Amino acid sequence: MRILILGGDGYLGWPQALYLSNKGHEVAVFDNQTRRQFDLKHGFESLLPIRMLHRRVERWAELTGKTIKIYSGDTTQWDSLAGAFQDFLPEAVVHFAEQRAAPFSMIDREHAFYTQYNNVLGTLNVLYAIKEIVPDCHLVKLGTMGEYGTPNIDIEEGFIEINHKGRTDVLPFPKQPGSFYHLSKVHDSHNIQFACKIWGIRSTDLNQGIVYGADTYESVLDPDLATRFDYDQIYGTALNRFAIQAAIGYPLTVYGTGGQTRGYINIKDTVRCIELAIQSEPQAGEFRVFNQITEWFSINDVADKVVRVGNRMGLNVQCHSLANPRVEAENHYYNVVHTKLLDLGLEPHLLDDNEIEHMISLALANQDRIDRRMILPTVNWREAENDVKRVEEEFAN
Amino acid sequence: MRILILGGDGYLGWPQALYLSNKGHEVAVFDNQTRRQFDLKHGFESLLPIRMLHRRVERWAELTGKTIKIYSGDTTQWDSLAGAFQDFLPEAVVHFAEQRAAPFSMIDREHAFYTQYNNVLGTLNVLYAIKEIVPDCHLVKLGTMGEYGTPNIDIEEGFIEINHKGRTDVLPFPKQPGSFYHLSKVHDSHNIQFACKIWGIRSTDLNQGIVYGADTYESVLDPDLATRFDYDQIYGTALNRFAIQAAIGYPLTVYGTGGQTRGYINIKDTVRCIELAIQSEPQAGEFRVFNQITEWFSINDVADKVVRVGNRMGLNVQCHSLANPRVEAENHYYNVVHTKLLDLGLEPHLLDDNEIEHMISLALANQDRIDRRMILPTVNWREAENDVKRVEEEFAN
Repeated sequence: MRILILGGDGYLGWPQALYLSNKGHEVAVFDNQTRRQFDLKHGFESLLPIRMLHRRVERWAELTGKTIKIYSGDTTQWDSLAGAFQDFLPEAVVHFAEQRAAPFSMIDREHAFYTQYNNVLGTLNVLYAIKEIVPDCHLVKLGTMGEYGTPNIDIEEGFIEINHKGRTDVLPFPKQPGSFYHLSKVHDSHNIQFACKIWGIRSTDLNQGIVYGADTYESVLDPDLATRFDYDQIYGTALNRFAIQAAIGYPLTVYGTGGQTRGYINIKDTVRCIELAIQSEPQAGEFRVFNQITEWFSINDVADKVVRVGNRMGLNVQCHSLANPRVEAENHYYNVVHTKLLDLGLEPHLLDDNEIEHMISLALANQDRIDRRMILPTVNWREAENDVKRVEEEFAN
Repeated sequence: MRILILGGDGYLGWPQALYLSNKGHEVAVFDNQTRRQFDLKHGFESLLPIRMLHRRVERWAELTGKTIKIYSGDTTQWDSLAGAFQDFLPEAVVHFAEQRAAPFSMIDREHAFYTQYNNVLGTLNVLYAIKEIVPDCHLVKLGTMGEYGTPNIDIEEGFIEINHKGRTDVLPFPKQPGSFYHLSKVHDSHNIQFACKIWGIRSTDLNQGIVYGADTYESVLDPDLATRFDYDQIYGTALNRFAIQAAIGYPLTVYGTGGQTRGYINIKDTVRCIELAIQSEPQAGEFRVFNQITEWFSINDVADKVVRVGNRMGLNVQCHSLANPRVEAENHYYNVVHTKLLDLGLEPHLLDDNEIEHMISLALANQDRIDRRMILPTVNWREAENDVKRVEEEFAN
């Protein structure tokens, strides 16, 4: 199958390209390099060194004989997007090409504006590209579990049957997202559902949990194939950051009381989930929603695991509670229905001690690349004056 | 009170400015003139001639001695928006500055993109302007009843208590909007609710029904104060268009079977509802939702009324069913809770025969200004090739 991966140079997009290419699909990646530009601007680096996209693709071809095509473009620029669609004529599109960090979107007005512009209007262009160029193409869109927030009822997969004043309907699950980033994904979901309805587009919206892990079975085949491993306060997710903190003897930074509970998924399961979605194509006009998580933990649960494993490895791992920079419930109900991907055949890689040990070991092996000024949170949901510049000032010494 | 009206040169924004100025408020209008530019581009005109904004404001001052301040700017341009906020320091902002036509948003990709760019990102800027410049300011935002779609349960005012698997929560009412325009308003609602939560902004989201009527008690004081009266297929709403069609002996164009039921409101009630919202300020951090309608009708109900009144006036009014250009249910349940504005003191102007006769009379008196090529629908929800140019081609002769 011809599969176009938007954002195919990113943390997940790149291993996804490798995975699908390895399975024999004809794969192309489309990327605007914006994530790498952020690093260039602020002097941040991935824990694991990553190669330029062209070199990654070359190395993959050397190792496997398989070709991954590169399109350099931006989803918000119609000509570049439509050009890639017209040239490649994808049968499935995997859409990772969004600004993906909640803290980034909360830095200030410009970052919020950029996030919603890039994500919502870029995705609107993707919908038109499918409609006008490849109407049978299946859109596999990355959403987030954060779209739901933390309601006091069970979270269903996209839709909920509501009984109200003696009548019944199945309606979109009400959303309570917690950042301008999460909001952008909610906006996308509404736009996509509408496009499916009016144009007969087929789409799978994957509400993904927090992804952890440094590598997939393909990315470890050669150092040149490594995907990025972020641990900074903008792009690094909690478990990745904790592994780094454990390795350098820095206290694990838990925000608030640590009761915040979220769904998690291993990067190895992410690439498989997307394959499962592609294999089980929805009907024309169908808008499917899968909750792409395998288990959930409070942030205290996650910290406790890292403390235990780290101490077993002979490290001295402490926990430190920080004033919560976010506006979120710290003690709340959380129960998520997530059966659809399991029904399609997902066999989860759960978060065990070996996985955590592997992550800490990677951090230890790359200790000289760890930059402490990137670890602490400086983006505050309530205040505007905190921004990336302040991170640099505060931790430069 | 200092009240800034964004979009204050438009169909509703202008009479709103007059109404609030007349009540003794200090009023300023902010407008980018984009609605007038559409007319200039396509050669469309309002049924009633409208004066330039500066002349309207001058005439109002001549008649009443009251000053309305003008800011020329665009909500998507931060500097112009922030400049107006810094200069005027509003205590309430009434936000009409959105692309307001569902058919406009469905013309093609560029129009959909513009609609969501202008509306969603413009409103995001408004939220930041309030947060950073006038944090106590009350945002009165115009949403639309079309955000809800037509669910098979009663439509509540913004929120619904859901009982699910033995647990209960009050959650945002699930939305099923029917165009990229309606979607933009749903996106706005989510963004505003979040801003209230994290920054303590106070906001009232008014889900307004279809507005009809040509004038308010202030706009009729002088011809120079008239507000626009649109009857074209892009900006004209059903009842306004029917009144025009009745006057020129053109069949009333009902889309599909005509069972589509929507909430309606008289323009005289719109201006009053917004005053009621301003008078009853929400708490800091409160996000209120009012359903701003007074009654509802199917499109057949509305057409029947116009036929009856028109024939009584000696006109020969026929009805004509057109293939529905939209993707929408034509027979559906519709019941809307709309008590909050009534509780605040709204005394509705209901749609009676006098109102319809007045609208048809206005059309008869301005017959020479009616342009037939503007009446028929050419924007189709399913197809992209229909656009405003085609209206001009098909009806030029």
